[in-house]
Amino acid sequence: MEEIRVKAASREYDVLVGEGAISEQLPRLVSGREAGQVVVVSHPHLLSLHGEELGSALCDAGHVAWEKRVFLFPEGEEHKRPVTVIALQELMLEWGVTRKGVVLAFGGGVVGDLTGYAAATYMRGMDYIQLPTTLVAMVDSSVGGKVGVDMPGAKNAVGAFHQPLAVIADPGLLSTLPRRELLGGMAEVIKYGFLYDERLLTLEGGSEGWVRLTEWERAEIIARCVRHKAAVVEKDERDLAGERAMLNYGHTFGHALEAATGYVTLRHGEAVAVGMIMAARAAEDAGKARVPLLELHRKLLSPLLQEAPSLEGIDAQKVIDAMRSDKKREREAKFVLLERPQRPLLVEGLPEEVVKRAVEETLGDLWPENS
Amino acid sequence: MEEIRVKAASREYDVLVGEGAISEQLPRLVSGREAGQVVVVSHPHLLSLHGEELGSALCDAGHVAWEKRVFLFPEGEEHKRPVTVIALQELMLEWGVTRKGVVLAFGGGVVGDLTGYAAATYMRGMDYIQLPTTLVAMVDSSVGGKVGVDMPGAKNAVGAFHQPLAVIADPGLLSTLPRRELLGGMAEVIKYGFLYDERLLTLEGGSEGWVRLTEWERAEIIARCVRHKAAVVEKDERDLAGERAMLNYGHTFGHALEAATGYVTLRHGEAVAVGMIMAARAAEDAGKARVPLLELHRKLLSPLLQEAPSLEGIDAQKVIDAMRSDKKREREAKFVLLERPQRPLLVEGLPEEVVKRAVEETLGDLWPENS
Repeated sequence: MEEIRVKAASREYDVLVGEGAISEQLPRLVSGREAGQVVVVSHPHLLSLHGEELGSALCDAGHVAWEKRVFLFPEGEEHKRPVTVIALQELMLEWGVTRKGVVLAFGGGVVGDLTGYAAATYMRGMDYIQLPTTLVAMVDSSVGGKVGVDMPGAKNAVGAFHQPLAVIADPGLLSTLPRRELLGGMAEVIKYGFLYDERLLTLEGGSEGWVRLTEWERAEIIARCVRHKAAVVEKDERDLAGERAMLNYGHTFGHALEAATGYVTLRHGEAVAVGMIMAARAAEDAGKARVPLLELHRKLLSPLLQEAPSLEGIDAQKVIDAMRSDKKREREAKFVLLERPQRPLLVEGLPEEVVKRAVEETLGDLWPENS
Repeated sequence: MEEIRVKAASREYDVLVGEGAISEQLPRLVSGREAGQVVVVSHPHLLSLHGEELGSALCDAGHVAWEKRVFLFPEGEEHKRPVTVIALQELMLEWGVTRKGVVLAFGGGVVGDLTGYAAATYMRGMDYIQLPTTLVAMVDSSVGGKVGVDMPGAKNAVGAFHQPLAVIADPGLLSTLPRRELLGGMAEVIKYGFLYDERLLTLEGGSEGWVRLTEWERAEIIARCVRHKAAVVEKDERDLAGERAMLNYGHTFGHALEAATGYVTLRHGEAVAVGMIMAARAAEDAGKARVPLLELHRKLLSPLLQEAPSLEGIDAQKVIDAMRSDKKREREAKFVLLERPQRPLLVEGLPEEVVKRAVEETLGDLWPENS
């Protein structure tokens, strides 16, 4: 079992990574709670796949009637909305859940973000535990306390900073993860490689590489990513000092790509993979890169797009427009670019033609029918 | 101008109290903001009464197009709901408001609580300024950062702790406050008197007393209450240490009374006034009171109920049931009772028959047709 301590300013907590971690660690975290005060939030499919493990951990802790406090909602970013949070909170009120209860977020990033936000605002704040079931959520979104929901045209526009009581990441759960989800998660792993960790850049071959890893290696990779994330959150919990902004490598391009395709075409990790290739191109084009970046990015990231649908017909201009509307909202036209791997820079005022070329050439390169 | 510094753990800020305070203080607080980044939240009636003063303060600060960023919603606790927050936040997104913007809450407790919550969660937190227009909001709800909205049957069930950038209380605005609202505010003033401040208990005669006061005295009374509130918030911002719970004097009974009457019969301050009389009765009955309390409570508080409708026909049992459901939600059957004025106690496990007698006898006494 890997234990990573996250020393955020508002709260310290552990991220526990390892095969069987939920059975092993969850009972002691919920055993002190009153009956009926443990709520599970998840998707129907996930609970039918892994509900038994989760259920026995809860029964071990004395919560034998745990199924009476389950909130399930359909998969998909389109359900990460205020209305879903309100439905969950109304049920919790009906159930008599108090601020001394705890909510378990059993799922990927959508479940984690939404559950964390519901917990942040229920009775002005209650505990929640992240039980990530996807690789993206294990290495990134479950750690750090950024929670929230989407508004029309604006991802995560409403939310809070609310650290979990604990994060328990069991790589065993990934055995049922669709290959495409795994590839998306690998993109976030590679992101940590480009930002901080040369060793993570030796993970070649996309998901085939993941399958060949031993369980120990998988836990080790997840723990490495979490350690990097924890270090950033400790320095800059509220995203004010520029440190946490670095984690957005590939995300300015990636978010725009997601927005331009209505959030349904690409998985988040895929969009970030494409976004990092665009960022590499932009870094070379703008003269920020001190070493060649594009080839390494293509080699590591394009295998992760194997299952992504073609973006044929996506207009580069639409992507740029989406970026502009994102920029307007944030008033921070900032890009994370690399001087070289493990040397990120926050760049303001990147020339529009550089951005445009990066988008057009990357789309044309990955989906040649576009050009 | 009275300036009270609130040293909350999460943020320090000033409460500025005085006739003309908005014209005098607001411009410097918003002058640095970009055009279009100042949002006003209020009620239609309020803005038609006092919009000119507010508007000229904003124009003085360069925000001449301020009227393009105004969100108005109808008065009444029934609009303090998540759906109103979502409507406001969607508009703010459309307007391109960023997390560097500021929202002005120009109204009573409903406007302040709702606006503060919208600001707490918009882009994970942005600034807001409290511009209270009622006595209740000036002396109590605008200070301390408790923000939120109601859910079905559960007041303030969803919310956050989010301190304002500043509070500006101009007692001049109270000249147009309906007499009934003023009386409700006096109940909160008297609450501070019972909890902390003998001098505030010399304010006899209900709103007639208020009318006879000089402007200077009004500002002084508001400032005294704010100083007491600030001291409590400094010690116990998040309501964890029991200090902040003291401010709920009269509220356990009062909330139950509001719930039992559907939140439409009594104003909040009126319910608290009745609640304090019930608490005085309970303190005497349970042997907690070291001096007689009931007579002083009746003398100071019953004049504040002059405009309240009769509670004839309200069943005491309904009030007790509402308290029980509130208790269940909170799992804290705590009452604030007085040993003597300025000597509050937090009492757990008050016998049910004491609670029942306090409710029944007070209702029967205030509205004799009930008994």
